[in-house]
Amino acid sequence: MTTDRKEPIYLFSEKQVAEKSALARHFLDNRTRLNENVDKADNFLVKRFYNLDHNAYLEGAVPAKYKELMGLVASVSLRCDDCITYHAIQSYRLGVTRAEQEEAINVALVIGGSIVIPHLRRAYELLTELYFA
Amino acid sequence: MTTDRKEPIYLFSEKQVAEKSALARHFLDNRTRLNENVDKADNFLVKRFYNLDHNAYLEGAVPAKYKELMGLVASVSLRCDDCITYHAIQSYRLGVTRAEQEEAINVALVIGGSIVIPHLRRAYELLTELYFA
Amino acid sequence: MTTDRKEPIYLFSEKQVAEKSALARHFLDNRTRLNENVDKADNFLVKRFYNLDHNAYLEGAVPAKYKELMGLVASVSLRCDDCITYHAIQSYRLGVTRAEQEEAINVALVIGGSIVIPHLRRAYELLTELYFA
Amino acid sequence: MTTDRKEPIYLFSEKQVAEKSALARHFLDNRTRLNENVDKADNFLVKRFYNLDHNAYLEGAVPAKYKELMGLVASVSLRCDDCITYHAIQSYRLGVTRAEQEEAINVALVIGGSIVIPHLRRAYELLTELYFA
Amino acid sequence: MTTDRKEPIYLFSEKQVAEKSALARHFLDNRTRLNENVDKADNFLVKRFYNLDHNAYLEGAVPAKYKELMGLVASVSLRCDDCITYHAIQSYRLGVTRAEQEEAINVALVIGGSIVIPHLRRAYELLTELYFA
Amino acid sequence: MTTDRKEPIYLFSEKQVAEKSALARHFLDNRTRLNENVDKADNFLVKRFYNLDHNAYLEGAVPAKYKELMGLVASVSLRCDDCITYHAIQSYRLGVTRAEQEEAINVALVIGGSIVIPHLRRAYELLTELYFA
Repeated sequence: MTTDRKEPIYLFSEKQVAEKSALARHFLDNRTRLNENVDKADNFLVKRFYNLDHNAYLEGAVPAKYKELMGLVASVSLRCDDCITYHAIQSYRLGVTRAEQEEAINVALVIGGSIVIPHLRRAYELLTELYFA
Repeated sequence: MTTDRKEPIYLFSEKQVAEKSALARHFLDNRTRLNENVDKADNFLVKRFYNLDHNAYLEGAVPAKYKELMGLVASVSLRCDDCITYHAIQSYRLGVTRAEQEEAINVALVIGGSIVIPHLRRAYELLTELYFA
Repeated sequence: MTTDRKEPIYLFSEKQVAEKSALARHFLDNRTRLNENVDKADNFLVKRFYNLDHNAYLEGAVPAKYKELMGLVASVSLRCDDCITYHAIQSYRLGVTRAEQEEAINVALVIGGSIVIPHLRRAYELLTELYFA
Repeated sequence: MTTDRKEPIYLFSEKQVAEKSALARHFLDNRTRLNENVDKADNFLVKRFYNLDHNAYLEGAVPAKYKELMGLVASVSLRCDDCITYHAIQSYRLGVTRAEQEEAINVALVIGGSIVIPHLRRAYELLTELYFA
Repeated sequence: MTTDRKEPIYLFSEKQVAEKSALARHFLDNRTRLNENVDKADNFLVKRFYNLDHNAYLEGAVPAKYKELMGLVASVSLRCDDCITYHAIQSYRLGVTRAEQEEAINVALVIGGSIVIPHLRRAYELLTELYFA
Repeated sequence: MTTDRKEPIYLFSEKQVAEKSALARHFLDNRTRLNENVDKADNFLVKRFYNLDHNAYLEGAVPAKYKELMGLVASVSLRCDDCITYHAIQSYRLGVTRAEQEEAINVALVIGGSIVIPHLRRAYELLTELYFA
């Protein structure tokens, strides 16, 4: 029971996001640098996992933008700042509004509890940078 | 930045779900029995938390069906069988298809890893009962 | 900076608790049976860990009853039913009231979020059995 | 079964704590700045959650100081540095001694294991600053 | 930097393990039944994840038996009974001794803390069945 | 069923590791400084836990190098950067190759999922420093 999957269409490039938000830029630069080092190691299983990871967020029965928001909810619940930043950026690039991001974070806040609040605070700082007119 | 929220419209009642799936019925009966006991305790903070929890899944900027799927993704990632059963049932009641449920679970599987697989297996058993023609 | 530690004084024996609550009895019987098997293995490091664990809940700068409630809060937050049952029983044996147990669980509910609710429901069932006049 | 709740009486203000400890000051400044940004977003559910969170630590059947120590134990067990710093400061402000803080951390260490040790090390650094004569 | 990987050689079949231990048999039967249902769903990403999972435990730079023990340590630390049972059985099938299994569990106990003990108790019950002469 | 335990033989001292890798040096310096502060507190239970922790990784039925790799797998699965750095360093000091470290991390990646990837990226940066010819 598998639906055809295809790449989502991004409204903004990573470069555009990096120009808009210093927090996003810092994250993306660091991630690029570290991923280049992972790529050099050329580990078979890591490459396959990255590929699987990519596949999970493609357009399908569930639109890509909601998959990224699901990734955001899981990242907040599991309390991973890098993962939160990544999925908030991806959601933004797919045209998700700030109100939608906040509602997704609210689901994670209620599920995950107050232990999630330090991450919510940092996520809101990123949202303020991304959605500043 | 808060959107008006309203109750979602369910396509199926809990009773209809319980008639369709023995796993769902067992869960719902048990949950009802235990919640009646919690209600009797009449704890102020617990009641307020239940109320907040209810609010997080209302129709808003994000449609209720995607909020329930977000709840499902977080529940699988955090490995809580009761929570998985609850959100899979709620998603079903809101007209979510099996393909959509599977894609949401896939996001959680990739984020949460193989430690999630025992819960995925049990979730698929529930999905098979719920979506049996 | 270590305070003298001594064994707490229990108001009720495990046997008395088991007579009052079927849930407690089931847990205690199972735990005794499994611990006998662990004891037979006579593993040095496990025995030392059990000993350390025992030490952490002795009377000290913090009264034993609050330490058991701390154990309860951590157990609810970390979502371990056996641990919750154990610390709720120990708290009861030390004279903790139901109101105190509920307030401790509330701290854990707010910290841990709705993912904690299935455990809260089961904990309330145990509390109802233990504190039934 | 709800006990009257009232605000606890603090022996020290946040300002006094910030003057005593550089680690506390850094945390409090950062938290204030980020919370101001969260406040500006004016999200209904977030505000209600913050309110609920506040309620969980009021004086009640369990004294506020033990509730803060419970928050500390859960924070160490769940490994959240910001949460640890917050509850250690709150405990200090309510007159909790260093010996009491250490015993609470010990409960969390035994429950949570060695994965907790990096957080314990940082917590001890804060305690040393706070309780320096 | 990838080493050639090949299937490990098992000293015992799953059938032999099931004949030796009632706990193992119950787990294996249940797992087989639930996996058949997952297979029927024929979900592309789930199948790829199962395949990746299989690859992670093949003979390589680290012998398969130590990879299974690593799986056991992670499963105990993350507190997943099904995962513990699975890796304890796989380790047994690869000729791992009881002393080796206990030492692996000890690493997980010290890392994961007392919250791990209920799982350790159940793991020891399985070990006693598996290693009974 | 306890095997004789003895201290492992390290191929490299902490000092040699610190000279080879800036990341390792930064971690070791910080850990030394913070541990000196913990030592000064002279807390009985903390000292006993540190001692137990030390015992869990000694040579025994499972060679010390595989115990350190088990510690690495649990640390990656539980997502603790300090713990990952510690066990990667210890493994290096015991002669573990980079291929072995990568395979251990792969077990943790598959068990723990993509939430583990930010930690994997940082771990690979450390491995690149440690294993640079």
